[in-house]
Amino acid sequence: MFPIRSILRLAASGILALGLSAAALCAQTDPLPSWNDGAAKQAILDFVARTTTEGSPDFVQPEERVAAFDQDGTLWVEHPIYTEFRFVIDRVPDLVKAHPELAEKPAFAAILSKDEQRIAALDARELFEALVVTLSGMTPDELGDEVNAWLKAARDPRWNRPYIDLTYLPMQEVLTYLRANGYKTFIATGGSVGVVAPYSQEVYGIQPEQVSGSAQALKFEIADGKPVLIREPKLALENIEAGKIENFRMVYGRTPQAQFGNSSSDDQQALQYVKRSPGLRLSVAILHDDAVREYAYGPAQGLPDSPVGTFSQEMYDLGMKEGWVIVSMKNDWNKIFAFEE
Amino acid sequence: MFPIRSILRLAASGILALGLSAAALCAQTDPLPSWNDGAAKQAILDFVARTTTEGSPDFVQPEERVAAFDQDGTLWVEHPIYTEFRFVIDRVPDLVKAHPELAEKPAFAAILSKDEQRIAALDARELFEALVVTLSGMTPDELGDEVNAWLKAARDPRWNRPYIDLTYLPMQEVLTYLRANGYKTFIATGGSVGVVAPYSQEVYGIQPEQVSGSAQALKFEIADGKPVLIREPKLALENIEAGKIENFRMVYGRTPQAQFGNSSSDDQQALQYVKRSPGLRLSVAILHDDAVREYAYGPAQGLPDSPVGTFSQEMYDLGMKEGWVIVSMKNDWNKIFAFEE
Repeated sequence: MFPIRSILRLAASGILALGLSAAALCAQTDPLPSWNDGAAKQAILDFVARTTTEGSPDFVQPEERVAAFDQDGTLWVEHPIYTEFRFVIDRVPDLVKAHPELAEKPAFAAILSKDEQRIAALDARELFEALVVTLSGMTPDELGDEVNAWLKAARDPRWNRPYIDLTYLPMQEVLTYLRANGYKTFIATGGSVGVVAPYSQEVYGIQPEQVSGSAQALKFEIADGKPVLIREPKLALENIEAGKIENFRMVYGRTPQAQFGNSSSDDQQALQYVKRSPGLRLSVAILHDDAVREYAYGPAQGLPDSPVGTFSQEMYDLGMKEGWVIVSMKNDWNKIFAFEE
Repeated sequence: MFPIRSILRLAASGILALGLSAAALCAQTDPLPSWNDGAAKQAILDFVARTTTEGSPDFVQPEERVAAFDQDGTLWVEHPIYTEFRFVIDRVPDLVKAHPELAEKPAFAAILSKDEQRIAALDARELFEALVVTLSGMTPDELGDEVNAWLKAARDPRWNRPYIDLTYLPMQEVLTYLRANGYKTFIATGGSVGVVAPYSQEVYGIQPEQVSGSAQALKFEIADGKPVLIREPKLALENIEAGKIENFRMVYGRTPQAQFGNSSSDDQQALQYVKRSPGLRLSVAILHDDAVREYAYGPAQGLPDSPVGTFSQEMYDLGMKEGWVIVSMKNDWNKIFAFEE
């Protein structure tokens, strides 16, 4: 509707020149300044250029530009224990006060002990079970408010900072860079969509409707004459193992053009499926190999497995064979957190 | 990035005047020309004005502007049988040839008989069962290609037109009008997301990732060394009854600001929940009361129930009490289909 052609036709040529030189300036600015020059950075830059340049054989229509990011270990710190579990752990004492019978369950007993090693030794299913009970019985908005209040108050024990400070600056740059090139950014987390969606816009610039995660069922009820939706203690969608890509494709009807992850337990099949889908695709796996600035863990480096995220030798070999981009946090990132000097 | 202010500052005032008068013209153009003037049309116009005018006490932030539309009976014809079931019916003979044991099942036997009354008499669960079997065993893309090929070839028996011609022009106008005012439009169908998403962009201008529906599980497999996702004969999400709003809120993390539907079997709780959510909300229920131009059915008008969509007296009374907009197709729409003279 806007008569832009007429304006441009009539505007002085000096103005047009101003517009062009601003664009040229932008092109010269490094969109990924926290990435060291190297194969990983170059692969991301090439992928974006090839999929967004009109006339390129790999051009992807703007509406099909979808990039999906795992959260824990890919967008922020997951070691030694997922932030979501820290939130759950903090909620457990009040919950057990209200429902003392829960103290009998192994996961709740471990959490009440506050012994991090004992908690970390729980298997994923036991933790999930504690999690779904802890995160049920309230409306989604009530849970969202609790999560956001907790994120403001809680501090990570190693850096003594709010958890939202522990997002990886290089990955925030990738999110911004992809969006600037017409990509729609999604989260595809093994964690709970009901926990992540309430802060995804503020922390990552990602709208809640673009957060896919494990999902507890909601139940419609009439309470005091008013319809409400209540979180049920059961998982309707499980984003673990292949579930992450199965559910993403099922819910959104699209295969991501680019997939970012780090864990054999919930990213491997997604990275595998995306990379082998038609057209130019990008699969990026983050290797936690920086024991000084962050953590180093995982069998792919001959290091002990992490009780939460893990990077198996099998996944490493598969990624190398399939042409994934494997990112070394130690070598590829010159800065990990925005708060670093 | 675009130096629009500079251009405007320097452009001749004549150009500015041209821009303003174009805007003024737009404001005077009726965004809903197929709607007769009346309470329903006015309620929609008022809702949009109040939620999108800055400074209005009912203003809704752009990112929160979500409108959800049922498909069958709300965006296109559903009577006497859902279009999706017509697609399934057309697929059944080939499927039974490959799997003769299916002919024993009541739903398949009814479909093979080609007796529309017998098919229409199947209950929703029996039809769903036939549907999930028929729509399984292939990849989502393979199903999408089949659906789109069928939509091009098949003709509706009453109007002898492709089914996509049977979308309601007044509702297409609402979709366009809402999007022009910053609303993100979603489909929330009781039908299959795997069937609707492949044509939603072309038919409604709605991206596949904004289509919520009943969803069959996908299964990750390696076939001939290549990872594939195969549709399983089981429902992971059921968008019937309250399931429609439960799943929408669970998956997208948002409550729609506006909800459009027509059926007691899958829209009632969504309309009820949305209207009673905080802030100014709009719930619109379409009454099929035009036996001449479309169909008239449903107990709310003292007419027989439709085997597919239905509008119960209870839903009608609830809607009146709760302040929903109840749209009479006969009285509120001066045109139903774009192909009408």
